[in-house]
Amino acid sequence: MELKTQIHAKDGEQELHITRQFDLPVELIFKAYVEADIVAQWMGTNVIKLEAKRHGSYQLETTDPKGNKHRFSGTIHDCTPQQKIIRTFEMEGTPFGVQLEIYTFEALSESTSKLSMHVIYESVALRDQVLQLPFKQGINMAHNRIEELLRKQK
Amino acid sequence: MELKTQIHAKDGEQELHITRQFDLPVELIFKAYVEADIVAQWMGTNVIKLEAKRHGSYQLETTDPKGNKHRFSGTIHDCTPQQKIIRTFEMEGTPFGVQLEIYTFEALSESTSKLSMHVIYESVALRDQVLQLPFKQGINMAHNRIEELLRKQK
Repeated sequence: MELKTQIHAKDGEQELHITRQFDLPVELIFKAYVEADIVAQWMGTNVIKLEAKRHGSYQLETTDPKGNKHRFSGTIHDCTPQQKIIRTFEMEGTPFGVQLEIYTFEALSESTSKLSMHVIYESVALRDQVLQLPFKQGINMAHNRIEELLRKQK
Repeated sequence: MELKTQIHAKDGEQELHITRQFDLPVELIFKAYVEADIVAQWMGTNVIKLEAKRHGSYQLETTDPKGNKHRFSGTIHDCTPQQKIIRTFEMEGTPFGVQLEIYTFEALSESTSKLSMHVIYESVALRDQVLQLPFKQGINMAHNRIEELLRKQK
């Protein structure tokens, strides 16, 4: 079955383009990326900080089944409500480096929207390593959770 | 004459590797990127803010001969003294997008050092547009100014 979240990765490039259409208005899908309580729910993380503004930053923490903590963090270069987030992203303590991420939000109708994620890695090799992780299924499941969670709030 | 600052740009890639050796100790060359008064001198800019720390940010402003102001800004993802700066960079109000920049500082001896700049663009096309600017000469001149300015402080 085709996943609703689609990942486009061309051979030899150091970037990914990820797209997803949501049965949610653009205001709600944007909230899923900037409001700490909503982020905590769909990502299953502890939100240590989330300053969703130009020149802000964020840090999230998950606990795996063995009780180990993993932290994800970065800076927020720009944040334009309902339109765009430009941020850096790092899985702390891993060799995957720092990514530049450009998220573009679009209303398709009053009740549907599209998220386009442009993710740029430090190298082709690092991008390809990330693609070896259970990344495709993971991001699709995460986006499904956003939809389930926020559908109730429509 | 070969420029001291060397730019390595492979066809079809969305990144640049820039290297420069300085007749300055690594402590001084690192200062040239994190201390506002030194940045102001070699870049010829007004430093509006420069929070040289993990999850900090910066904004610089230049005035051109016609009196027009140009702003450059970004976030500082990470800042490790004498070793590394990871930041975003944007020429505000231009179509060049946001860059991810990884600067690595290395001591070559007590009095010499090397700066390696890895600059990653949103696309190959944007990188190639930046290379059309008088970029090569500009960055070499700027690095020469750092050397002249800080040689007096050795």
